[in-house]
Amino acid sequence: MRTAIRIGVVYFRRLLKYKNNTDRSGMAEVMTKRDQDYAKWYNDLVLKADLAEHSDVRGCMVIKPHGYAIWEKMQSALDAMFKATGHVNAYFPLFIPKSYLAKEASHVEGFAKECAVVTHYRLKSDPVHGIIVDPDAKLEEELIVRPTSETIIWNTYRGWVKSYRDLPLLINQWANVVRWEMRTRLFLRTAEFLWQEGHTAHATKEEAVEETERMLDVYATFAEEWLAMPVIKGIKTASERFAGAVDTYCIEAMMQDGKALQAGTSHFLGQNFAKAFDVVFTTKENKQEHVWATSWGVSTRLMGALIMTHSDDNGLVIPPKLAPVQVVVIPIAKNEEQLAAIRSYIEPVLAAMRAKGITVKFDDDDKKKPGWKFAEYELKGFPVRIAIGPRDMENGTVEVARRDTLEKQVMQTVDLAEKVDHLLTAIQSNLYQKALALRERYTRSVDGYDEFKVAIEEGGFIYAHWDGTAETEEKVKNETKATIRCIPLGGTASPGKCMVTGAPSARRVIFARAY
Amino acid sequence: MRTAIRIGVVYFRRLLKYKNNTDRSGMAEVMTKRDQDYAKWYNDLVLKADLAEHSDVRGCMVIKPHGYAIWEKMQSALDAMFKATGHVNAYFPLFIPKSYLAKEASHVEGFAKECAVVTHYRLKSDPVHGIIVDPDAKLEEELIVRPTSETIIWNTYRGWVKSYRDLPLLINQWANVVRWEMRTRLFLRTAEFLWQEGHTAHATKEEAVEETERMLDVYATFAEEWLAMPVIKGIKTASERFAGAVDTYCIEAMMQDGKALQAGTSHFLGQNFAKAFDVVFTTKENKQEHVWATSWGVSTRLMGALIMTHSDDNGLVIPPKLAPVQVVVIPIAKNEEQLAAIRSYIEPVLAAMRAKGITVKFDDDDKKKPGWKFAEYELKGFPVRIAIGPRDMENGTVEVARRDTLEKQVMQTVDLAEKVDHLLTAIQSNLYQKALALRERYTRSVDGYDEFKVAIEEGGFIYAHWDGTAETEEKVKNETKATIRCIPLGGTASPGKCMVTGAPSARRVIFARAY
Repeated sequence: MRTAIRIGVVYFRRLLKYKNNTDRSGMAEVMTKRDQDYAKWYNDLVLKADLAEHSDVRGCMVIKPHGYAIWEKMQSALDAMFKATGHVNAYFPLFIPKSYLAKEASHVEGFAKECAVVTHYRLKSDPVHGIIVDPDAKLEEELIVRPTSETIIWNTYRGWVKSYRDLPLLINQWANVVRWEMRTRLFLRTAEFLWQEGHTAHATKEEAVEETERMLDVYATFAEEWLAMPVIKGIKTASERFAGAVDTYCIEAMMQDGKALQAGTSHFLGQNFAKAFDVVFTTKENKQEHVWATSWGVSTRLMGALIMTHSDDNGLVIPPKLAPVQVVVIPIAKNEEQLAAIRSYIEPVLAAMRAKGITVKFDDDDKKKPGWKFAEYELKGFPVRIAIGPRDMENGTVEVARRDTLEKQVMQTVDLAEKVDHLLTAIQSNLYQKALALRERYTRSVDGYDEFKVAIEEGGFIYAHWDGTAETEEKVKNETKATIRCIPLGGTASPGKCMVTGAPSARRVIFARAY
Repeated sequence: MRTAIRIGVVYFRRLLKYKNNTDRSGMAEVMTKRDQDYAKWYNDLVLKADLAEHSDVRGCMVIKPHGYAIWEKMQSALDAMFKATGHVNAYFPLFIPKSYLAKEASHVEGFAKECAVVTHYRLKSDPVHGIIVDPDAKLEEELIVRPTSETIIWNTYRGWVKSYRDLPLLINQWANVVRWEMRTRLFLRTAEFLWQEGHTAHATKEEAVEETERMLDVYATFAEEWLAMPVIKGIKTASERFAGAVDTYCIEAMMQDGKALQAGTSHFLGQNFAKAFDVVFTTKENKQEHVWATSWGVSTRLMGALIMTHSDDNGLVIPPKLAPVQVVVIPIAKNEEQLAAIRSYIEPVLAAMRAKGITVKFDDDDKKKPGWKFAEYELKGFPVRIAIGPRDMENGTVEVARRDTLEKQVMQTVDLAEKVDHLLTAIQSNLYQKALALRERYTRSVDGYDEFKVAIEEGGFIYAHWDGTAETEEKVKNETKATIRCIPLGGTASPGKCMVTGAPSARRVIFARAY
């Protein structure tokens, strides 16, 4: 892993053009660097860029305003894509009766070990122990805080679906869910997290499979066009499948340390939940059939993906399309008079930017020095920073710094809004290209298992042949900590021989260590 | 109460101009009428208009897509108002350690009796009983599912506030909360509900009080301008105060049956939570002081307010500004050829409406008959319905029906978008005026307690003098089921004598029976 990190950092150093970056303000010093300790760098960044922090409640995080604002941008973009593909939102209960969870056998097996269980509904005052749980207020049936909502939703769908005319149901829910994880990391794995979960019901298997694939495409488009994060679409092996699914489709991304991150999943559930909850419909031909299902979700984990795909040793880098504020303008003034002059000079420029849909903040807070602000906005990942002082005004210019490359350039104020608009597009594109270049650099094909063992230590995605058995998958996992990320969709499938057993393989699958 | 309902209905009959309403399609028959059984009418409407339904989980509701779409409109309008007043969103944990809840004495007293308590974090398989709660996975300290978040948030603020420079904190959270209510009603009182809760921290008492009042104004503006629901701003008596607040401000609305509904509250919390959680800051003068706090919230209860303010015996009536779809256009065609002609005829009109920001749906679903659609959209409260058939096209007209008055009129297609835009404004305004007229009709001043007892049976708001004691308030409540809704803000305060005890009173307060 160390090797991979070092290669990655050298690579980045070249890309980042440190020579242009002359006004480091002490921020880089206080933050752990990626090549020192990648995990600590990540944690430092989340804390210092004010994205999130651990709460006193085990495994639960507080999402701070800056982090939440980015999540809101993600929500808004995704929600529009869901609605454009015909989905509507609804809301189902937080609590799931224990018996519901138990109705789909593999589902309960997958989630039973990490459930928050509500057993009582009242506290009371006790003269000795203070406030205690009232033993007389015990629930007849325990309630599970939803780890996912298939069971409660399919129990509800039973009442909604009678005939083929009621289908499809294309419903999404934005919600919090709880999985009692033992080892947690901010955004990547927390006991409570925020997500959306789509749950659809269809008359035919074909339609449900089509929906599963459609939503995988929506996720891939969002990841690539908004997050600027290239992803590989694929299907999970049986052992990595969602508990209760027939097939789990996924998008997999590569982080800067060469590890994989599963960024979204879309499940074809077959008739499993319809059978468990007895959801049948009358077909056009007047027959009774079980309904076909899908579910699909992405979560606040995407915040972790955003951070680890783009950020650098100076802090967060936000792709412009997800930045709560895309451009910050910092006046450099010695006194109130100069500030007033800058304000009236820049106002039409700000207005022109806003008219183009650019979100821009003019930061004239005089309690903070410009140098402090530069460092702060860099740390927090604002895509473009514009500085303007009295001399700039005389020259009809401003200084424009882009966060992705840390390059600065002097620009004429004439048509600045248009130039900044282009710059934002260029940054969005550059971030994607940079991430894609990294992934390509750390992707290779390997044929022999010994070669594989060396390669996996260097990180990245490894395309290798696998015999399709859970035994081989498990052996590789135990011996190398690498999992099969997915069986990739599309491309040409050339057959070969399993790198471990030599048995025939239809196509290469992707192995990696993963978050 | 019966009397009030009858008067209300007679009054509405007059307003509704039933004579224009010639194509009732059987919907009115299946729904309970308001004067038959108001509570049943409400419940019927929520179910039949597809707004929400009871789930199998005690007291928890499923918010269906149509209901959720209206809630999303409310969220979006409120969120913009919060942001315009300087607030940002964040997210805090769902769970609150039991000991936190206990830290503010009156707070825990207010919420202890209705808490969902998480005691375990794992299920397991048992050969005899199936899936059971794993007794080995008991939490050291029980967790409460948040009934409100003051305690977890103020525990977090302790780490965020060091100096006056960190203040104010102006933070809002959109979340689900749980209060284990014994008697529940869809939207009005449910064990789990959705809401927003603002939690702000300030350096001075004055600033915190100003914030409390600002947010009350935001709620009142939202209620009147978006919900089209007139409200009275006031302060709660001590016994109706939020558990942990110094002062609770509220907006109170009158429903069609003359009962009051508290639609939003804004609390001045003083330094209670700062003291309980030890949140101090260094002032400009370098002294250590406790921070001043506010909190404020509105919930999915507003859906109940919307329904009971405007809806009628034909179903839901949605104010245009909160309607997910404002205009539905229904083609009346005998065959595909006619439909195609209507489609191309109406397309520019739809485009013109959309250009004005009007949300419009062209419903050419041929599986459903126009009559069925008319009834369905009326039941679901769509503000404007436009019908167009071959003869209309020949005449260059359409038939426009408004949901609020049920009036229909023939309109020229020329400039239709502009006319519909005006009509939507007129409907929004009419709904507000109608609700205001109802409230004024059912508001009166009463001086003697005997007179009061008669008046309260007729429903509505009663302005009466009260001696300011909890004893008198309790006596009135026990004897008449009326509570003091608020001590109204503003207006002229004329002193008088308490209607019960004859003791002096500074101003009249508002009594009513309430939801």
